[in-house]
Amino acid sequence: MALLRSVTDPRWLPVALAGFDHTLADHAHCEKKAAASALKLVADHPDRPELVRPLARLAQDEMQHLLAVLNEMGRRGVALPPDEGDPYAQALVRLVRGGGPARLVDRLLVGALIEARSRERLELLAGGLEEPRLRDLYQRFAQSEAGHERLFVELAVGVCGEAAALERLGALAGEEARVVAGLPVLARIH
Amino acid sequence: MALLRSVTDPRWLPVALAGFDHTLADHAHCEKKAAASALKLVADHPDRPELVRPLARLAQDEMQHLLAVLNEMGRRGVALPPDEGDPYAQALVRLVRGGGPARLVDRLLVGALIEARSRERLELLAGGLEEPRLRDLYQRFAQSEAGHERLFVELAVGVCGEAAALERLGALAGEEARVVAGLPVLARIH
Repeated sequence: MALLRSVTDPRWLPVALAGFDHTLADHAHCEKKAAASALKLVADHPDRPELVRPLARLAQDEMQHLLAVLNEMGRRGVALPPDEGDPYAQALVRLVRGGGPARLVDRLLVGALIEARSRERLELLAGGLEEPRLRDLYQRFAQSEAGHERLFVELAVGVCGEAAALERLGALAGEEARVVAGLPVLARIH
Repeated sequence: MALLRSVTDPRWLPVALAGFDHTLADHAHCEKKAAASALKLVADHPDRPELVRPLARLAQDEMQHLLAVLNEMGRRGVALPPDEGDPYAQALVRLVRGGGPARLVDRLLVGALIEARSRERLELLAGGLEEPRLRDLYQRFAQSEAGHERLFVELAVGVCGEAAALERLGALAGEEARVVAGLPVLARIH
């Protein structure tokens, strides 16, 4: 599934690799927030069993990633800095419409796009890292995020039907590309 | 470690077993909130590496419990109802002092007490449930919560020293027993 409407700026990978300790710490915060967001979706939609278990499993995956990243940080002697916030994700969340099923569909599709962009960048890292152990780790992260990307789209289709979900996904994907283009190139995941 | 200053009302177990589907659903919400609270502690204290990894692991345990409970609910055809809120946990959280290390110590010790009360009740359920698979599941949950109870106390000791942590734990444990005594006997974990 090719959700993204743009490829990452080629300047990003060398910056992310040169500041890899910082990229890693940002990655930890991303995984923490992804787990928390999935739990929040469960908390907000307990009445939708088709969402509850898949999203709880997704949150568990993100927790596993968080632990793997924290272990790597421990190995490198990097402490977790305060969370600087994520202007990328914040800009996407602002696109979520007001209420009801439209709001849920948008939250799911924004989730899909964040996972898709993360997957793209984790794959770039996997390709650029020198240490085989780290390359493998980032390849596994990327595969997992690809599964999440598909899950979020499928869940959105389940809420509003395929035509409406894909139309909205297209609109949000255009916005996502615009947001990414406006962000500075930093040693962060987004 | 015996943190609790009271034993659960003997009327609770029959009520919790008679309304087990409801107890199970409440349990799912408890695990969800336990995972979210641990993630929130990580988010609030990234600068304390001695907390970050253990609490991320604890959050992952709680996610595993949540999934196991949701699977059991699925098996029984029970949907997750809206979260009714937890007056027990809310009353304990109100005891947390204002700021700085005292606030962190209180959050950890309240966590320890909630885990301790949960463990007591999950053990009661393990002893009262008839189906061997469910008894085993609840015994495993209880063992896991016992580990969390010890972890929270150890982390609090790490923040403020053993004497201060145990003194505050004693005061909070007295309050916990008072809170529990004032709650109705319901088919819920607390």
